[in-house]
Amino acid sequence: MKTSQFFLHTFRESPADAQIISHQLMIRSGMIYPTYSGIYSWMPLGLRVFSKIEAIIAAEQDKIGCNRILMPTIQPASLWIESGRYDCYGKEMLRFKDRHERDMLYGPTHEEVITDIARYFIKSYKQLPVIFYQISSKFRDEIRPRFGVMRGREFCMKDGYSFDIDQEGAQNSYKKIFFSYLRTFKTMGLTVIPVRANTGAIGGNLSHEFHVVAQTGESEIFYDAAYDSVDPAALTFEELEQIYTAADERHDPATCGVPAERIVKSMGIEVGHIFYFGTKYSKSMNFSVIGKDGAPFPPEMGSYGIGVSRLVAAIIEANNDKDGIIWPDAVAPFKIAIITTNQQDTRGAALAESLYSKLLAANVDVLLDDRNERAGVKFSDIDLIGIPYQIIIGTKAVEYGQFELKIRRTNIRQDLSFDEVLNKFSAGG
Amino acid sequence: MKTSQFFLHTFRESPADAQIISHQLMIRSGMIYPTYSGIYSWMPLGLRVFSKIEAIIAAEQDKIGCNRILMPTIQPASLWIESGRYDCYGKEMLRFKDRHERDMLYGPTHEEVITDIARYFIKSYKQLPVIFYQISSKFRDEIRPRFGVMRGREFCMKDGYSFDIDQEGAQNSYKKIFFSYLRTFKTMGLTVIPVRANTGAIGGNLSHEFHVVAQTGESEIFYDAAYDSVDPAALTFEELEQIYTAADERHDPATCGVPAERIVKSMGIEVGHIFYFGTKYSKSMNFSVIGKDGAPFPPEMGSYGIGVSRLVAAIIEANNDKDGIIWPDAVAPFKIAIITTNQQDTRGAALAESLYSKLLAANVDVLLDDRNERAGVKFSDIDLIGIPYQIIIGTKAVEYGQFELKIRRTNIRQDLSFDEVLNKFSAGG
Repeated sequence: MKTSQFFLHTFRESPADAQIISHQLMIRSGMIYPTYSGIYSWMPLGLRVFSKIEAIIAAEQDKIGCNRILMPTIQPASLWIESGRYDCYGKEMLRFKDRHERDMLYGPTHEEVITDIARYFIKSYKQLPVIFYQISSKFRDEIRPRFGVMRGREFCMKDGYSFDIDQEGAQNSYKKIFFSYLRTFKTMGLTVIPVRANTGAIGGNLSHEFHVVAQTGESEIFYDAAYDSVDPAALTFEELEQIYTAADERHDPATCGVPAERIVKSMGIEVGHIFYFGTKYSKSMNFSVIGKDGAPFPPEMGSYGIGVSRLVAAIIEANNDKDGIIWPDAVAPFKIAIITTNQQDTRGAALAESLYSKLLAANVDVLLDDRNERAGVKFSDIDLIGIPYQIIIGTKAVEYGQFELKIRRTNIRQDLSFDEVLNKFSAGG
Repeated sequence: MKTSQFFLHTFRESPADAQIISHQLMIRSGMIYPTYSGIYSWMPLGLRVFSKIEAIIAAEQDKIGCNRILMPTIQPASLWIESGRYDCYGKEMLRFKDRHERDMLYGPTHEEVITDIARYFIKSYKQLPVIFYQISSKFRDEIRPRFGVMRGREFCMKDGYSFDIDQEGAQNSYKKIFFSYLRTFKTMGLTVIPVRANTGAIGGNLSHEFHVVAQTGESEIFYDAAYDSVDPAALTFEELEQIYTAADERHDPATCGVPAERIVKSMGIEVGHIFYFGTKYSKSMNFSVIGKDGAPFPPEMGSYGIGVSRLVAAIIEANNDKDGIIWPDAVAPFKIAIITTNQQDTRGAALAESLYSKLLAANVDVLLDDRNERAGVKFSDIDLIGIPYQIIIGTKAVEYGQFELKIRRTNIRQDLSFDEVLNKFSAGG
């Protein structure tokens, strides 16, 4: 992509209501635009990151055999009356009537809709286990939307739902998702801490939240310092359970069993939440299937969420410096930016164009900044939007064939030849 | 994908309210589930087709330099009051209040939202021309939703918006999109007829609808029989304009200039609609940019829609027989199905598994029907769901190495060796 064709517009200032760094940087880099309070439009730069996160999540879900579907955003109230949740949910649920005066709502979650689907399609234990997931818009009418897409009203979630024959099966599904989430976040370059959580409105008896540690987090989490030295994705569920972690509501220093000096207290951004809730919905919504013995039984269920739009902000909270965003490679809008210091110099422009085409041909995700702007403006824009690798094409390149590679995260710079740049990045390095 | 892991469930019957063949076949093949009147859930099989259509549309939009964004589904009424459309739109617009009693709506279209975005980002003629597009959910509260996803209430659209300096630029953008639509539909295996149309609520002075010819269409279209013998995507806009086509409201036999015997009258399914409406929104919403001469002016705009979910149904209307759907290759949920006639025969099952892995490794989109079902059930299911190429692995394969290839559309069958199957499809044939 070339900046001459790509809609990229940055700002020096961010609005006064942008209190946290991710919100400020997303506005300044032109990733998002606030269409209304808590309701954002994703501009081309932001949507590229959003889509990469979505693709990483989907790839891992597909790999473990989940079935992707797409449920509607608008749901009939009747399903929620059936499950008994219609009156539990507060004003966060956006309710309205359609033109025939029927009660409808914009789904904040989809347990009812998926259970209704399951009871239509699934008649026998032979069709179990199955895990469905979707990636789609949700609406929660927050009383005070803030922190940009971190706590918006309309947002994008991956939500998944498992159906199993018995508790053992359901716990296997739960573990499968648990570890797939750890791998998903790791692929994005994020360290997360899974903590035991209360289950809230969804109800049930087993639940974990996945937190990104960040000072701007909204939740307090507590964990054994031992956690900092392990790779959770490499442990078994049993090994992981040995390391104490807890969300605020569940933490009790008296009973946690870890010496006070080893307890780390931190702020966390919740980016995932999983629940095992047994037969709560299958029973209330009369969903039963025929078992091996010919007798009907209600399947065991769980639900599993990742905040897709929120992750964009959480990754920025964990990856930034005074100059802007520092994207981990896997979610960067572009992996490499080629910057001409003087686009009017036709020799430099030609070198940039040639490198750009060769990288594109090697399937590298590259942005060519071919704007007629001062070099300083281009450098600071590319730093701000956080491109991990920058190839600077200036006098050195034109005169001596030296292409300066700058690594955004470390600020390490080195001079490479044209072929060295090509080899380095075409090889996926 | 294997049917043992893929959630696939077909039905012999379709509900009485499914009046048209695409609705019947989508329900029978388990592609969709009616969550509520006019509100559908997309099951794994349906979503695969949906996603392929989405990808074809996006690829063509990207190729012509459009910038992909994502706007919210929920919009503030204030923007529509500003444009003057809030009171024009009838009950099809889903209106409601948020928890702070502010008037909101579920967007049936996004001219207001994009104009609001544009006036924030675009300050100078140097930033023009630009075309934005998104692929997302819309809601239109149809009084009588029917025909499945063909006329649903919640549906998916690709909508695009162009901004230009002057009328000439705007017409260039319009033409660019016009021809990209012809290529998009052709890639999907669809023949469409673009007809001049009235502009309705969006207003303006140039508009075309793109129709798939089908007896179940809801609109009458009229065109010169000469149209049937040309490839519209290969013509210039001027050449195309020489061939008379018109939507019902615009057709007048007295003035059309084509002899009555050469006029074809047909039913059409509208799958695309494009509008050039000048400065209607830029003026009403006070969006102006600084021109070359330093004076502000309102940009010229157009909007461009393709019905993504509707296309799934339209393609089925144009591609089916008594046994079910016949997907064009480009949008098929799977290109090839490998069917074992007796999954209990371990030799056949092993051959199927081996062919399946080799095709997967060659990046072929293949479904292995490894269910323990009678061959007849599997044949009719795979016909019903419309897989273009079927490789049948039965006694002939086990005993003589003969793999039967059946082409769904022509019902032509031929025996191939294992390597012949592999070569035929690995080469992309």
